[in-house]
This record gives sequence, structure tokens and C-alpha cells, in this order.
Amino acid sequence: MRVLGVDPGLTRCGLGVVDGTPGRALSLVAAGVVRTPSGDDVASRLLALEREIGDWLDAHHPDAVAVERVFSQRNLRTVMGTAQAGAIAIACAARRGIPVALHTPSEAKAAVTGSGRADKPQVTAMVTRLLRLTDPPRPADTADALALAICQLWRGSATRRLAQAADQATERRLAAGGAVARQGGLP
Amino acid sequence: MRVLGVDPGLTRCGLGVVDGTPGRALSLVAAGVVRTPSGDDVASRLLALEREIGDWLDAHHPDAVAVERVFSQRNLRTVMGTAQAGAIAIACAARRGIPVALHTPSEAKAAVTGSGRADKPQVTAMVTRLLRLTDPPRPADTADALALAICQLWRGSATRRLAQAADQATERRLAAGGAVARQGGLP
Repeated sequence: MRVLGVDPGLTRCGLGVVDGTPGRALSLVAAGVVRTPSGDDVASRLLALEREIGDWLDAHHPDAVAVERVFSQRNLRTVMGTAQAGAIAIACAARRGIPVALHTPSEAKAAVTGSGRADKPQVTAMVTRLLRLTDPPRPADTADALALAICQLWRGSATRRLAQAADQATERRLAAGGAVARQGGLP
Repeated sequence: MRVLGVDPGLTRCGLGVVDGTPGRALSLVAAGVVRTPSGDDVASRLLALEREIGDWLDAHHPDAVAVERVFSQRNLRTVMGTAQAGAIAIACAARRGIPVALHTPSEAKAAVTGSGRADKPQVTAMVTRLLRLTDPPRPADTADALALAICQLWRGSATRRLAQAADQATERRLAAGGAVARQGGLP
């Protein structure tokens, strides 16, 4: 299972690709930051971002994309760029049929540090440890994108386990029901 | 000159296409609203919106797209959907090489009513009058999109007139400079 985490922004958009299988260690595939010049008009910036994210999706073929859910507490100027960049990332993935999950910053922090209020150094330290890197991930501002990817790998696999358990329960019910039906049904 | 105005939103996205030439009356080409179900996930909604806006661009071939610039005074929940939908509209146009202009709600209101604080009925009444419609535009919530298109037609043409005047001034300066150069230059 491979996830691309996206920490959206117009000025800096963090991207991080992580591979992970339940019960096995996580591994870093790629990390990077897309920057668009603040002097350019929004249309050019969104288009540049769309191209870069598209290139990442086509190069790394993630099974899912995890985008930061923009959070209301932030200041409004930042939220605008984050919402716009996030929308581009979501549409890029959806256009390719790749499932998109949204996680709040607290969910991503809690996934890697155990606390939704962890600070940046703590998130970076845990991302470094979980991906078994000798140094913090470069560029430095990819830690949040990687945390989002890890959050999705772990939450996603929990969701899948729940879904599988539900499927198995349904199968058992159907099998039992089938047996009942066969008992009372036509030969 | 044809402009598509976009009043962005995830639940309702207003679209209005207006034709206009400086010195001639404006005319309504098309108006509509794209709705995406609030129960669907954001990825599906953004993708549906992208498809619809793309269809409008391909059907009407506007020379420019005018999108509402999201304004900080609004409440944050609304702003998120507006920013996301706006980003999709901007990227759709930019991908096709169509210039995108952003106007605040006040700019659009001022363009059609003379006041940036005009209320909705006033905007609708003026859009109806300016487009010489016998009834208010349908669907009702396309008035803002049409006002954005009209705003762009008028502001855009003002910008073009200024640019033309500047070009002519430059040409006159160059012609005068050329004459001077010819006077002192080689035969």
C-alpha cells in the first residue's frame, strides 16, 4: 500500500510518498515541496501545482492520497491558499480514480506522535524514526506531508480491517441465512 | 468579447455567460447552476464541478473567465467550499489557456448597480435590465455569476482602453524619437 500525503499550500505544498503494509515497517519513497511564486497570478500558480502533483501521481502511482483537511482555527489568509491548493490536489487524484482521504492536522500529529497537539520538532522526530531515516526528511517542510501519508496508512488499514471484519460477519450471516433458506426452501 | 462568470460554491456554483462589445448592449448567452450533493465526498463533488465547468467552457468558448475573489469577511465554513470550487474553476480555465480575472463581490455589485453594498434584489434587477431580459435570469441564483461576467466585460474593456492609450502614446513617442534619430542619423 502506497500513500501520497499532501500538505497543501500555494507558496509551499509539501508532498510525501510512503509505502506501508500492516505489520511491516514503513518506508520513504519520495518527499518534496512544490513552490509557486507569490508574485504570479493565482491561475498560473494553481496550474503549476496541478502539473506537479499530476507528475508525482504518475511517477509514484499511490493507492491513495491523503490531503490535509483545512481547519477553521487557522488564519483566513492562509486558509484560502490551503483550500485552493487542497482542492487541486483532491481533483488531481480523483481524476485518476485514486481514493482521497482527508485528515486534520491533529489527526496526522496524533497518528505519528500519539498527541494531536505535538509541535513541529516532535512530528519531524517521529516521522524520521518511523521511516527509519538517519536524518530528518529533506526538504524540512515535508514532515507534515509524510505524517499525513503515515496517518492514512495506519487509519486506512484500521478501516480496512474493520471493513474486512464486517464483510466476514456478513458472509457468516449470509452463510447461516443460506443454510436456513436451504432448510426451508425448494430442493 | 464573451465572458463566463463563476459564482463559486460546492453546493451551488452559479455560471453565467455574457457577450459584450464596448459601445454595444450586453447579451445573455447562458446561465445555470451546478449543484453537487452535500452528502457526497469532497473529491466526487470537486470532480463533478470540474466536469461541468469544463463542459461550459467547451460549449461556450469564452474569451475570459471571471471568478469571485473569496472575501475574508464571510464565515469560514462557506469560505472553504467557495475557495475549493473557485480553485477548480480557475484551474479549468487556465488549463485551456483562457485568461482568468478575479473580482470581489463588491466590485461585481458596484459594476452593475453603482454600489458595492447593493443587496441581492438590486443586483438581480440591474442584471435583468442590463441584459434586457423581460424576467429576472433563471435559475434565480445566477444573478451574481452574470454580474461577475458584466463586471469583467466593463473592467476588462476599461483596462484594454488604458492599454491601447498607453500603446498609442508609446507609438507617438517612438515616432517622435524615430524622427529625431532620423534627423541626426545616417542618410
